[in-house]
Amino acid sequence: MTIQKVQVVERILDANDQIAEQNKKKLDQAGVYSINIMASPGSGKTSVILRTIEKMMGEYKIAVIEGDTAPVTIDADKITAMGIPAVQINTGGQCHLDANLLERGISALNLNELDLVIVENVGNLICPASFKIGTHANVVISSIPEGDDKPYKYPNIYRGIDTLILNKIDLLPYVDFRKEYFKQGIELLNPGLSIFELSCKTGEGFNQWIEWLKSRISKRNS
Amino acid sequence: MTIQKVQVVERILDANDQIAEQNKKKLDQAGVYSINIMASPGSGKTSVILRTIEKMMGEYKIAVIEGDTAPVTIDADKITAMGIPAVQINTGGQCHLDANLLERGISALNLNELDLVIVENVGNLICPASFKIGTHANVVISSIPEGDDKPYKYPNIYRGIDTLILNKIDLLPYVDFRKEYFKQGIELLNPGLSIFELSCKTGEGFNQWIEWLKSRISKRNS
Repeated sequence: MTIQKVQVVERILDANDQIAEQNKKKLDQAGVYSINIMASPGSGKTSVILRTIEKMMGEYKIAVIEGDTAPVTIDADKITAMGIPAVQINTGGQCHLDANLLERGISALNLNELDLVIVENVGNLICPASFKIGTHANVVISSIPEGDDKPYKYPNIYRGIDTLILNKIDLLPYVDFRKEYFKQGIELLNPGLSIFELSCKTGEGFNQWIEWLKSRISKRNS
Repeated sequence: MTIQKVQVVERILDANDQIAEQNKKKLDQAGVYSINIMASPGSGKTSVILRTIEKMMGEYKIAVIEGDTAPVTIDADKITAMGIPAVQINTGGQCHLDANLLERGISALNLNELDLVIVENVGNLICPASFKIGTHANVVISSIPEGDDKPYKYPNIYRGIDTLILNKIDLLPYVDFRKEYFKQGIELLNPGLSIFELSCKTGEGFNQWIEWLKSRISKRNS
């Protein structure tokens, strides 16, 4: 019976990965680059997205897909207030997005009119790591007040991601955060990973992150 | 097939609740009070537990059960450094504790020598809400830098809990946090819930929380 259970789980993950591949194909065919932003609740995902839109919206056509466990439109409302299309996916309590949910999200967008789709995953440092959704890059946001031990305690989310944002650096003077200890943990899990230290409050460090994102978009299109 | 799937899920949850009841009976028989602390990663669960132990260890015999997704003993080491027994439960990637895992934790303790067992659940604002484990009280810790919209975005975790700790109030001057908006959200989900505002850094607000915990323990024993 245990073996049968394992087989069923494997089939579900296979199905998810297949749909993730289809999602990536759809995005590629439309010439759209996409990123999946994963983080703990309250790390500043929405704030990073809003600042990123602000910096890029003149040059790029952007849409946002918001994953939420509850049927609230707090984050989606902030995006649409900037004149940017937002699709809210209510997971109905599920603790992560999966490829099937992203498929519904991109189906609701007119991809041919877009350059970049930003996906805000459900706030969770554990479950989203296990589900490919089909985006081109996976980004994790950590934040200073969460503490410097997160890479050691939640290692899976940092493995295999494409870049890391270390947010809320304006709070460094008020919080005990050993930056070297944090970075050593990341280096063990994901050697050579680029880390962008920034603050949504002051705007510090945003240019480097935006440059990285723009270069990824242009590499994809070349 | 869908119906069958639903039935299987129900049976698993039933089994969990039955084991949770057995856990509570075991704790009751030994005269031990227990709390389950749930929170987002980095909200300060371990810091709150360390300060709580510091305030209570002369008067009460305490043990801690640490739930972690990864096999690291960072938190458990901090507890044992205070001379307090700690049991680490590595969930093997699972995003929450369940009654079965707690059963293993309490089996590793000599309950007859204890007054209070503090359980630190896995850092996650979603999944732990769905699993009773058998403790006497459920406590959620929120923290100021996580933001004031958490009750609206992660409602399930705040429903049915026995008290809420609002941690890191020392960061209030540096973070935009509308306390009234936060509390209104909590009141909608859990009317009349007691909220303890405190800071592990300065110790502010700890006495009220300790008084609440002591009165719960003495009520249980009377």
